[in-house]
Amino acid sequence: MSETPGLRPLDPADLQGNRARYDALMDVVVNRITTREFDSSFDVPREHFELILEAARQAPSGANSQPWHYIIVTEQPVKEQIAEYFVGEQQRRIDLNMKFPTPNYSGLATAPGFIVVVTDFRFVRAFPVLRDEHSALVRSEVNDMYVQNAERILLQSVAASTMSAHLAATALGYNVWWVTAIGQEGAQKAMKPLLGIPDDLSVLDIMCFGPPKTKTYKRWKKSLGEIINWDQFQPEHHLSLDQVEEWIQTQRHKVMYRDAKNVD
Amino acid sequence: MSETPGLRPLDPADLQGNRARYDALMDVVVNRITTREFDSSFDVPREHFELILEAARQAPSGANSQPWHYIIVTEQPVKEQIAEYFVGEQQRRIDLNMKFPTPNYSGLATAPGFIVVVTDFRFVRAFPVLRDEHSALVRSEVNDMYVQNAERILLQSVAASTMSAHLAATALGYNVWWVTAIGQEGAQKAMKPLLGIPDDLSVLDIMCFGPPKTKTYKRWKKSLGEIINWDQFQPEHHLSLDQVEEWIQTQRHKVMYRDAKNVD
Repeated sequence: MSETPGLRPLDPADLQGNRARYDALMDVVVNRITTREFDSSFDVPREHFELILEAARQAPSGANSQPWHYIIVTEQPVKEQIAEYFVGEQQRRIDLNMKFPTPNYSGLATAPGFIVVVTDFRFVRAFPVLRDEHSALVRSEVNDMYVQNAERILLQSVAASTMSAHLAATALGYNVWWVTAIGQEGAQKAMKPLLGIPDDLSVLDIMCFGPPKTKTYKRWKKSLGEIINWDQFQPEHHLSLDQVEEWIQTQRHKVMYRDAKNVD
Repeated sequence: MSETPGLRPLDPADLQGNRARYDALMDVVVNRITTREFDSSFDVPREHFELILEAARQAPSGANSQPWHYIIVTEQPVKEQIAEYFVGEQQRRIDLNMKFPTPNYSGLATAPGFIVVVTDFRFVRAFPVLRDEHSALVRSEVNDMYVQNAERILLQSVAASTMSAHLAATALGYNVWWVTAIGQEGAQKAMKPLLGIPDDLSVLDIMCFGPPKTKTYKRWKKSLGEIINWDQFQPEHHLSLDQVEEWIQTQRHKVMYRDAKNVD
């Protein structure tokens, strides 16, 4: 393989000078903003899909297994069928009396950029796990723990890649929507046939992007002081279960949907 | 709350101009390089830890719950005790005959930048799940599926935040090491008391960074053509289970540890 284009190894002596590079990164990171309704008249150039997945491609992964496939959906009827599944899911949550402030999933069909994120859970075999002589995963108390951990490695790997893609879409000027595949089995059945996805792969997320339909806003974020700890976990950062509950009851709907300025 | 500093909402009309911003992002993304042995004499300025976690802070998360805590470890004896646990884990894998090409974890103790990533699994309650009148998670076939999905949302959220932090460290000129907490229960027992982490929180990952001890290299990545699909999953991207096995047997150790140029 040839040298990776753009690869520019760093000299630690150069650390001061890299503040400019950090600021350029943060210009993207801070501007990553969610919208759930897009300007559907916008045409995403084919090159932008490629630039976005070029970023996804560079992510780290357990055992460098890169267990991700990205399916770009350009056909409007397919977007609508996927949106329909999620609108049904929205209704199921209401019927179950789930009390979760579910977003309006009909906005999915408005996304000019629509990428289905697929993973291959068979790659947990490539992580530290025990396999028998037929290379099946061993079922034992010790190994169940390793397998659980391997699934976490896989999920975190795909998320790292998806996050790269979201930042690239942001850099290109788009708003984004990271949809986590909800209601696993139903979601799989609804989406796989539409996209020709083999049974042994799994839909994990959907990434939507595009210009927003209406003005968007940055969501509330915790302060740095709330997430940073020096050498010892700061006890005041610990929530009791009652406080977790209270957050869900009184804050969740606000931080999910309001401008940071309007969160008390 | 005041306006987020650096927030610069984008005008879709500005899309062409944003190619420069994309290139600046990719200068970081492409240079994210793993090392597993650092120049331990290097002193990371306190400000760099803050800049790195400022990036982590901005990540998206399920229900905007931001279920992450970061513990910066500056004390050498604590780094050494954590490294010791992982070196023990290395030996356990050998004893179990796991055949995984485990890295040499003693390098952990050499990392001048050492951040333990902690999550709060209680926040799965904040995602779409059913809870009873005492706000405990309902055990049922339907809800077990929602709970499993909620755990995935949580893991992907923390990974998105950790990925942001890795990119920020890269931008500042460091090499990185994303250590996924291996052997969950043992890892929890080894690390929590050292860092004062309450029982109901969980160590998920460790992020190491710093100048490398020796020259580092970019790992092999799949080509864009191997991960991109237009409207339908391309059948030639599908591996049989035998091919997954073959990859593990013949490729894994190479892609984990060799320069991309030296992967066949």
